[in-house]
Amino acid sequence: MAKKKKSGKKTASPSTPFRDALCAPAGTDLTAIDTRGTPAFDGDKGDGKKALAALAGPVSDLQERLFAGATSGGRRSILLVIQGMDTAGKGGVMRHVVGNVDPQGVAITAFKAPTEEELRHPFLWRIRKALPHPGQIGVFDRSHYEDVLIARVHDLVPKSQWARRYGQINAFEQGVVDQETTIIKVMLHTSKEEQKERLAERLDRGDKHWKFSPVDIDERAYWQDYQQAYQAAIDRCSTDVAPWYVVPADRKWYARLAVMNLLKEHLEPMDLQWPEADFDVEKQRARLEKS
Amino acid sequence: MAKKKKSGKKTASPSTPFRDALCAPAGTDLTAIDTRGTPAFDGDKGDGKKALAALAGPVSDLQERLFAGATSGGRRSILLVIQGMDTAGKGGVMRHVVGNVDPQGVAITAFKAPTEEELRHPFLWRIRKALPHPGQIGVFDRSHYEDVLIARVHDLVPKSQWARRYGQINAFEQGVVDQETTIIKVMLHTSKEEQKERLAERLDRGDKHWKFSPVDIDERAYWQDYQQAYQAAIDRCSTDVAPWYVVPADRKWYARLAVMNLLKEHLEPMDLQWPEADFDVEKQRARLEKS
Repeated sequence: MAKKKKSGKKTASPSTPFRDALCAPAGTDLTAIDTRGTPAFDGDKGDGKKALAALAGPVSDLQERLFAGATSGGRRSILLVIQGMDTAGKGGVMRHVVGNVDPQGVAITAFKAPTEEELRHPFLWRIRKALPHPGQIGVFDRSHYEDVLIARVHDLVPKSQWARRYGQINAFEQGVVDQETTIIKVMLHTSKEEQKERLAERLDRGDKHWKFSPVDIDERAYWQDYQQAYQAAIDRCSTDVAPWYVVPADRKWYARLAVMNLLKEHLEPMDLQWPEADFDVEKQRARLEKS
Repeated sequence: MAKKKKSGKKTASPSTPFRDALCAPAGTDLTAIDTRGTPAFDGDKGDGKKALAALAGPVSDLQERLFAGATSGGRRSILLVIQGMDTAGKGGVMRHVVGNVDPQGVAITAFKAPTEEELRHPFLWRIRKALPHPGQIGVFDRSHYEDVLIARVHDLVPKSQWARRYGQINAFEQGVVDQETTIIKVMLHTSKEEQKERLAERLDRGDKHWKFSPVDIDERAYWQDYQQAYQAAIDRCSTDVAPWYVVPADRKWYARLAVMNLLKEHLEPMDLQWPEADFDVEKQRARLEKS
């Protein structure tokens, strides 16, 4: 079969400004990143909302191609990992970014405190079960990184145990990538002051009380410990096959726009084509006419 | 504690024009329903699209209240069952209706031909596993009704077996409703002629070939058998606790608008309130200030 012709704009590699600006290799200093910054984007909030809306169509198209590919044997999938402190905007990303693509092609898993059954298994057990199927965009709201974040900060397991997990995570992620899953790991990076404002809003509004727990304030005392744990996760687990992206998230509109662009900039280079028909179109047209 | 004040508009029962117009009790004659009709709606396609967009906010708000309720012990959930012939628009309902609400609160399950493991279990086994959790809107793209539709039309099991299933389904659905799940069963009702046009479009467009299979044309020979099987499902399983709604679906925009309204008209009477804070708001404000 002759090689498929591609449209002109696809012959050059797609540009990846958000990937380039937000990629955080090992050694990236988290404290040097402005949580109110808007890397790779010049506009204001209004512009950002328009830019996000404008991406809904193109990203949905890419997602549908990914999904369609799996119906003819394609194995590729996406795993979007969203991490961040409480109130960092994980829920908003689910609603305003992930909510932009066809829900049939998306599988969101929210990882809470492990159940008793989950605790009886290795920490990656529940993660493996939630990996995306071919063609899917899997989304993790929190992830296996909690096992080197809260578990480390609060000594939920001995240090000897969590210290081993970085290597286990890297081996695990390598295996996932080998199965043709593209991993996009996002840290929504917010300031402690911004968190105070967001918690205050949850206290001020009756329709937000259900999102608040007094424990959220207890946890603020461990802010620095969490930042150090995130730093370690980046230093130990930002690999070539699955790098971390640090997204400044004090401006919610920017964080959403950035994650949407990261999704687009990972889907585009996959050069997703509609599957070829495995039937004779003319023959089927004639059959349909008579049916 | 004093009874909560409710806003004025909630004291009267919400009106339910789409429920009233589309509800199909046992005995409803499917052949008498115009598949191009637009019951309970006066406008044209443009009006319908606007009306659908206008519902996104209110339905999202109701969905979030349902979800929030579960965080404080609420047990209620919704199960939206979508059935219809091939090309009836099930995928479009997933994308354009279900896609309007926060994906975190939604669980879509697409039921394909049963796997070998599923076939070793009673037909409701895989259905039970997919029931929505408290606070969720569960959506079935096909459902246990396939077990009295394709299974009946193609004799996948002996008649003695599928004939028993109607009663089993009613008992099962009664149990689901007893667990505080509101069931909304929708048949997307299309004509055989409309299906021909939609299949022709799939053949005409390279980006739609992956949705087409030659089997789709074979199945058209059984159109009447399927209609009779749907008629039987309505006659046997349109119960007081879980009635069927027949949605004319030759106009895609109407079908989507109708399903969105059915969702709204089932959520509204649940009178969903934001959970009360289980903490002292003032005390937490003071703690936050010092943190």
